[in-house]
Amino acid sequence: MPNQHLARWPTVPHLTTALTGPLQKIETLLLDEQSRIEAWFRAEWRKTPAPIYASVDLRNAGFKLAPVDTNLFPAGFNNLNPAFLPLCVQAMQAKMEQICVTAANVLLIPEDHTRNLYYLESLATLAHIIHNAGYNVRIGSLRPDLEAPETIELPSGKAVTLEPVIRRGRRVGLEDFDPCVVVLNNDLIGGCPPQLQDIEQQVTPPPGLGWSSRLKSAHFSHYHEVATQFAHLLGIDPWLINPLFRNCGELNFKKREGEECLVKNVGGLLEDIQRKYDEYGIDKPPFVVIKADAGTYGMAVISVTSVDEVRRLNRKQRTKMGSMKGGASVSKFLLQEGVYTFETWGEDEAVAEPVVYMIDHFVVGGFYRVHTGRAAHENLNAPGMHFEPLAFADSCINPDASQAPDAEPNRFYAYGVIARLALLAAARELAEH
Amino acid sequence: MPNQHLARWPTVPHLTTALTGPLQKIETLLLDEQSRIEAWFRAEWRKTPAPIYASVDLRNAGFKLAPVDTNLFPAGFNNLNPAFLPLCVQAMQAKMEQICVTAANVLLIPEDHTRNLYYLESLATLAHIIHNAGYNVRIGSLRPDLEAPETIELPSGKAVTLEPVIRRGRRVGLEDFDPCVVVLNNDLIGGCPPQLQDIEQQVTPPPGLGWSSRLKSAHFSHYHEVATQFAHLLGIDPWLINPLFRNCGELNFKKREGEECLVKNVGGLLEDIQRKYDEYGIDKPPFVVIKADAGTYGMAVISVTSVDEVRRLNRKQRTKMGSMKGGASVSKFLLQEGVYTFETWGEDEAVAEPVVYMIDHFVVGGFYRVHTGRAAHENLNAPGMHFEPLAFADSCINPDASQAPDAEPNRFYAYGVIARLALLAAARELAEH
Repeated sequence: MPNQHLARWPTVPHLTTALTGPLQKIETLLLDEQSRIEAWFRAEWRKTPAPIYASVDLRNAGFKLAPVDTNLFPAGFNNLNPAFLPLCVQAMQAKMEQICVTAANVLLIPEDHTRNLYYLESLATLAHIIHNAGYNVRIGSLRPDLEAPETIELPSGKAVTLEPVIRRGRRVGLEDFDPCVVVLNNDLIGGCPPQLQDIEQQVTPPPGLGWSSRLKSAHFSHYHEVATQFAHLLGIDPWLINPLFRNCGELNFKKREGEECLVKNVGGLLEDIQRKYDEYGIDKPPFVVIKADAGTYGMAVISVTSVDEVRRLNRKQRTKMGSMKGGASVSKFLLQEGVYTFETWGEDEAVAEPVVYMIDHFVVGGFYRVHTGRAAHENLNAPGMHFEPLAFADSCINPDASQAPDAEPNRFYAYGVIARLALLAAARELAEH
Repeated sequence: MPNQHLARWPTVPHLTTALTGPLQKIETLLLDEQSRIEAWFRAEWRKTPAPIYASVDLRNAGFKLAPVDTNLFPAGFNNLNPAFLPLCVQAMQAKMEQICVTAANVLLIPEDHTRNLYYLESLATLAHIIHNAGYNVRIGSLRPDLEAPETIELPSGKAVTLEPVIRRGRRVGLEDFDPCVVVLNNDLIGGCPPQLQDIEQQVTPPPGLGWSSRLKSAHFSHYHEVATQFAHLLGIDPWLINPLFRNCGELNFKKREGEECLVKNVGGLLEDIQRKYDEYGIDKPPFVVIKADAGTYGMAVISVTSVDEVRRLNRKQRTKMGSMKGGASVSKFLLQEGVYTFETWGEDEAVAEPVVYMIDHFVVGGFYRVHTGRAAHENLNAPGMHFEPLAFADSCINPDASQAPDAEPNRFYAYGVIARLALLAAARELAEH
């Protein structure tokens, strides 16, 4: 094989791995099939262009590597290794030059929770990426109480200036600023605000992908198809990369309405998982994650290993499951196969969940959510969760053909592949809008 | 200015600077106008797409920052900082997905001088970049003596495998390998080889841009226009970024044919430069670089500060000026304004000439040619020249709004701008093919 000297070279991006054991079967396969995989992705992106950005939460159980959440309005850009920023800038250039052909002004619309300094640090980084991609970027806030520009100094020494959004006819902008495109970094959980309705300018991602209209179950339906096609390409069982899921109709945890349907589906899903565990000889109890079908921030998320646990949920847990960020109430739930996290970090073996970031269809970086106080089957993106972001390593490459396939740079190619499968599912959601 | 916190953030790529003094006027201007400059480039790339890759030799005289050579078949990829490789891979993905829509096989055709280990290291790196962009890449040699695949182990521990190119009807390939695109890394100084004539597959860059048909004077004519338009955009004197040049008709140094024309033009050019030096109060002697109008490797290059020097060239110098790599004889010459190199590196103040690398229209890295034995007005890319490559620094960014404009990461934005102006000139050459 003339390519044998190339086949094992590191790829983009290179990450600090929390894993130290041998490379798992699925990861080895993805590495071996790199050229076919990339050709397949190229064909798919031509059919359905990727959204401007996304972050994907992965779980690596060793025997299974799968996405558990896909965020189309990602925060956490500040958690990326600064060494990845040039990759972010370049990918943003590639994306934006397709969107904004002639003009140079970009309006960035963030979340309203402007006292969250972590979020504002991410916002500053995102604005920096767009700025260095070669655009005039300004930040327009939808906060009704904001009447004049407000500059917030951040712990990192950076600052962000929020300005009131101004609607002029069918255009949205700021004072003295008429943007050619609006980049949305607000998940619109409360619905599409009037300022953004019916405007001439392109909004990306489109407001229809906000949580007021998007459902996780729709995403994972698309993901199911993507994973099935991809698994067919490689001749593997789709389950190895695809979490099983079900959804119920309307539920009311507090009033215990729809509980029997929930119990039935949790039970069915646990049985489905057990069958796969038996098939692969996995000696672990299956578990199911119940989460709000719309929404982020992991407020309404719970993990159960039996139907009894569903029945025994106490009042506090039921109240928690019924409420979301901003006080919105939750009635639709996704029941998702829990995927064990067998990645740990440090001497204390803290649980580590990888999050992969993409701009356009390019993988630009990622980090681990590292949490010392949780078990392998618990949700790491939970309210009050204190995680330490562990940035994926510097993209420094020391090309060495003799490096083992499980060397750090090689290991993470697989993560970028699975994250892009979830991105492709999001692209198909996008195509429906 | 709402952007004031962003305006001074570092950009791509970040370089180790050989300069330590304050930022010069021209560099400050380019930094200040970043958004306008990028918008202008975006419009230009839409009109004339960039070639697949290029490297540009720059000279920074402080008062003037200009390209002196543009290589469309660059070597030296191995001299780039390994931290830049992900940027190279990503840019190659962006380019190749435009070129090679459906297939996955890329044939890379290198120079024939396969005993040059420096070149082969660059070739290995280039193949690696294409491979990790997601393509099956194999290397096809035009060497007539190559009858079977030959693997060459390199000092870095890498290896390259050269395979004989096979022509089948109107397609070129290797044994068991039918490529969809041919990437040329051979400057075709000896003309377009029969294997590549009249083939169906796209060859990029096209053979017509090889040195058998390309002239530096044509490139610098285009560059003159580009620089004039760009200078108009910024309201500056084009001379600050544009080396003056002239060319003569046919010359024969050995036979002293055409010498009067040469003397006349060298004299005229020196006077033109002196006028600009007077205008800007530059107290240095002007100099002119005489170089072959076609060709690389700096074999036929000489630097003169007076017409007397031209008349006094000795036999050895005349012979040198008449011969090129591969024994080709030179009859066309470019007379180019010499641009002082005021960048030095290290305690010994070694002369340093920046070389910037681009893939598609993205600046992906660069390095300094550092040479201790030469003066500021001598050509650093000369036969037998021993230079130390000093890779531009890691792209590590530590965003700090309070950083001075002359901080390392900021300083090099200007280099990327001027290099891309030369790239745009090359894109206009390309559009004529």
